[in-house]
Amino acid sequence: MSAETPRQFHLNAFLMNAGHHDAAWRHPRTQPERITDLSYFQELARTAERGKLDSLFLADGVALWGNARYNAVGGFEPLTLLSALAVATEHIGLIATVSTTFNEPFHVARKFASLDHLSGGRAGWNIVTSGNVAEARNFGREEHLEHALRYERASEFLDVTKQLWDSWRDDAPVIDRERGVYSEEGAVSAIGHRGTHFRVDGPLNVQRSPQGHPLLVQAGSSEDGKEFAARYAEAVFTAQQTLADGQTFYKDLKSRLAKYGRGPQQLKILPGICPVIGGTEAEALALEDELTELQVPAYGLQQLSGMLGTDLTGLPLDGPLPDLPEEQDINGNKSRFTLVAELARREELTIRQLIARLGGGRGHRVFAGTPEQIADQLETWFTEGAADGFNIMPPYLPGGLDDFVDQVVPLLQDRGLFRTEYTGRTLRDHYGLERPAGRTAVAS
Amino acid sequence: MSAETPRQFHLNAFLMNAGHHDAAWRHPRTQPERITDLSYFQELARTAERGKLDSLFLADGVALWGNARYNAVGGFEPLTLLSALAVATEHIGLIATVSTTFNEPFHVARKFASLDHLSGGRAGWNIVTSGNVAEARNFGREEHLEHALRYERASEFLDVTKQLWDSWRDDAPVIDRERGVYSEEGAVSAIGHRGTHFRVDGPLNVQRSPQGHPLLVQAGSSEDGKEFAARYAEAVFTAQQTLADGQTFYKDLKSRLAKYGRGPQQLKILPGICPVIGGTEAEALALEDELTELQVPAYGLQQLSGMLGTDLTGLPLDGPLPDLPEEQDINGNKSRFTLVAELARREELTIRQLIARLGGGRGHRVFAGTPEQIADQLETWFTEGAADGFNIMPPYLPGGLDDFVDQVVPLLQDRGLFRTEYTGRTLRDHYGLERPAGRTAVAS
Repeated sequence: MSAETPRQFHLNAFLMNAGHHDAAWRHPRTQPERITDLSYFQELARTAERGKLDSLFLADGVALWGNARYNAVGGFEPLTLLSALAVATEHIGLIATVSTTFNEPFHVARKFASLDHLSGGRAGWNIVTSGNVAEARNFGREEHLEHALRYERASEFLDVTKQLWDSWRDDAPVIDRERGVYSEEGAVSAIGHRGTHFRVDGPLNVQRSPQGHPLLVQAGSSEDGKEFAARYAEAVFTAQQTLADGQTFYKDLKSRLAKYGRGPQQLKILPGICPVIGGTEAEALALEDELTELQVPAYGLQQLSGMLGTDLTGLPLDGPLPDLPEEQDINGNKSRFTLVAELARREELTIRQLIARLGGGRGHRVFAGTPEQIADQLETWFTEGAADGFNIMPPYLPGGLDDFVDQVVPLLQDRGLFRTEYTGRTLRDHYGLERPAGRTAVAS
Repeated sequence: MSAETPRQFHLNAFLMNAGHHDAAWRHPRTQPERITDLSYFQELARTAERGKLDSLFLADGVALWGNARYNAVGGFEPLTLLSALAVATEHIGLIATVSTTFNEPFHVARKFASLDHLSGGRAGWNIVTSGNVAEARNFGREEHLEHALRYERASEFLDVTKQLWDSWRDDAPVIDRERGVYSEEGAVSAIGHRGTHFRVDGPLNVQRSPQGHPLLVQAGSSEDGKEFAARYAEAVFTAQQTLADGQTFYKDLKSRLAKYGRGPQQLKILPGICPVIGGTEAEALALEDELTELQVPAYGLQQLSGMLGTDLTGLPLDGPLPDLPEEQDINGNKSRFTLVAELARREELTIRQLIARLGGGRGHRVFAGTPEQIADQLETWFTEGAADGFNIMPPYLPGGLDDFVDQVVPLLQDRGLFRTEYTGRTLRDHYGLERPAGRTAVAS
């Protein structure tokens, strides 16, 4: 982005089965029978592209999420889905979540390079370390890797992955049929990585991709997570309940960049928001209530128990939370634990009220209002130092995304806060981020 | 397939960069600059579908194949590519090679289930155990896992994978909005696998897919490989140089099925063939010579050294092979070693001649001739008990696939040997194979 371009939003469409609200699948406007139907996601992808959004964003875990008895789960694996959606779209970025804890750098580097080629430079990787013992138990481990060790592994994982992406020079294929030389000596090189967690020879078996490196996104907001983000991430997806919390997080994270030789524009901070949109504020609030009414308490209790690392089964729904552990004793998602515990304490919520508050965004901010009110909220967070853009989490699909694209995006465009056309070709272009330089030929 | 349907061929289009011949990329009719271009593969996929072929078949390895100096390599990863090609096609099967040695069952079960959903039931998995130390060295190991142990791991891998695919009953999602029940108790179940190589709790986080299990393909022809195929595979891709060898292999493998309670129709045997097509026999032979002339000897020598587990560097190209190890001492692709060693011995080939013979199919049969001669060869192998169909390996692309589809397929159709329209919806339908039954509800 040049200095003259006014600073603009970045907006991702975070797609989730029947919608982000945990009761969305029970709402008559949703289509839970289509979560294994490619055409459903093709339609959503085209809607997001119609809205000129930066990317499609897919979360992931390597265990069944939630409980198949009470929620619409069991849909697509993100990288296969985004590869198919690359064909249904032309401009929009494609961000898939993949864990560094249960994968190998060679596979991950390769799949994202392949997606980046397939899509003409639209791939992004949301790097997670996984916070769930159910995931560990699908990969031969009884317990989850300890939090700090997960991030240590993630760092080395990134170092290896970036070397693999650079193992082919951009100019490697010379395709000299006459001489019989496809690529010059030294243009494709082993990496010979020997580390604590990985030993990887390389080179990668995929040529350097349009973006050089797929966009690196990160979503943890713990101490370890923020430090990791400052070092590696180009976009951060974060859960922030209040403007003040958002501002604190924004300032904190941006201030950590300098020590890694990075400037504040090299990392975009994107809080999640679940916008419940109505023609009037009353309609929006009524829709939110309608979704809350549809919640299955047993499901909410199970989810809340997971987030708090505390078994809440059997406790009265209309009573308070019991005493909770300290964040330091949580080995799952530490920052989400603290956010939920503080929300309950600050607003003195009963368990039932807390389940209702978490239904829409699992800790991400839920805001119900008119398109104008939502645009105002986003603008405020953007101009007051809490956000460079947002991960939009429609509470129900497909309508919740349609409404955002058709009713909120035009307001943001009118205010000069959001693009009216795609001006770049790659996801890095959309985010205003540079393409990482690769290795260059050494004069011999 | 009903008893009345005449027995027909199965034909896969085995796609490979600029073509299967190792010098294809130097030939003026090829497009090596497009191997990282999705539209190139979309065109090939549409050509294969125009020919009513059963599937697209993609090989794979988790290390750079060959040598980027002398061959067009570094293209797409198969599962991402096939996910994108699912959108460009409607009928054709999509078979991706994935190794059981360098992967985890949960990831593999999930990705194939996802591809099967994406494509409406067209996914196939070519199961390999990997034969290459360069692959091991991309995954933290200095040496490759021993051959028998690879197959032991592969067996347990398949057992886990099949359980994961069956962890959702076909009728699991009841989507009862009124009661708030997405799936009934017991319809989605943990698998609790505790084995020698894997411990996997499950369930899978993808619903049971259109085919139940993606088609299982296997490509090893060693003793371990044949036994594994007899137990698990529904199609076998094999390299056979002569009709007699093909007949022996066919009879051997089919005879092993009974002990696993399987009938001969439950496994299709598909030798690879690289058809070099010309308007006249002389034109076909001239094209073959032209490709041989373009071979880079250093590349051929490296490939041959790999196949024979013997460093041939520095030996005179016009002399014979040196003494070779025994198959029992080969820890890579045992059956390919024996095939190449026997070919050299039987025909008393020099190293240069052997490199020329292997250039087109890396051990798979190369046959140069007119469309009629090629159709005759295929028919002979099919009717004389050596094949249920073929993996077609065009020596150069895209023209070599066009020629096969436009000139050979119509002859096979005229002879009643190949379908003129797709009659089924899934890859299993194309192969005449049943959909595996899943778990059913137990009356409570």
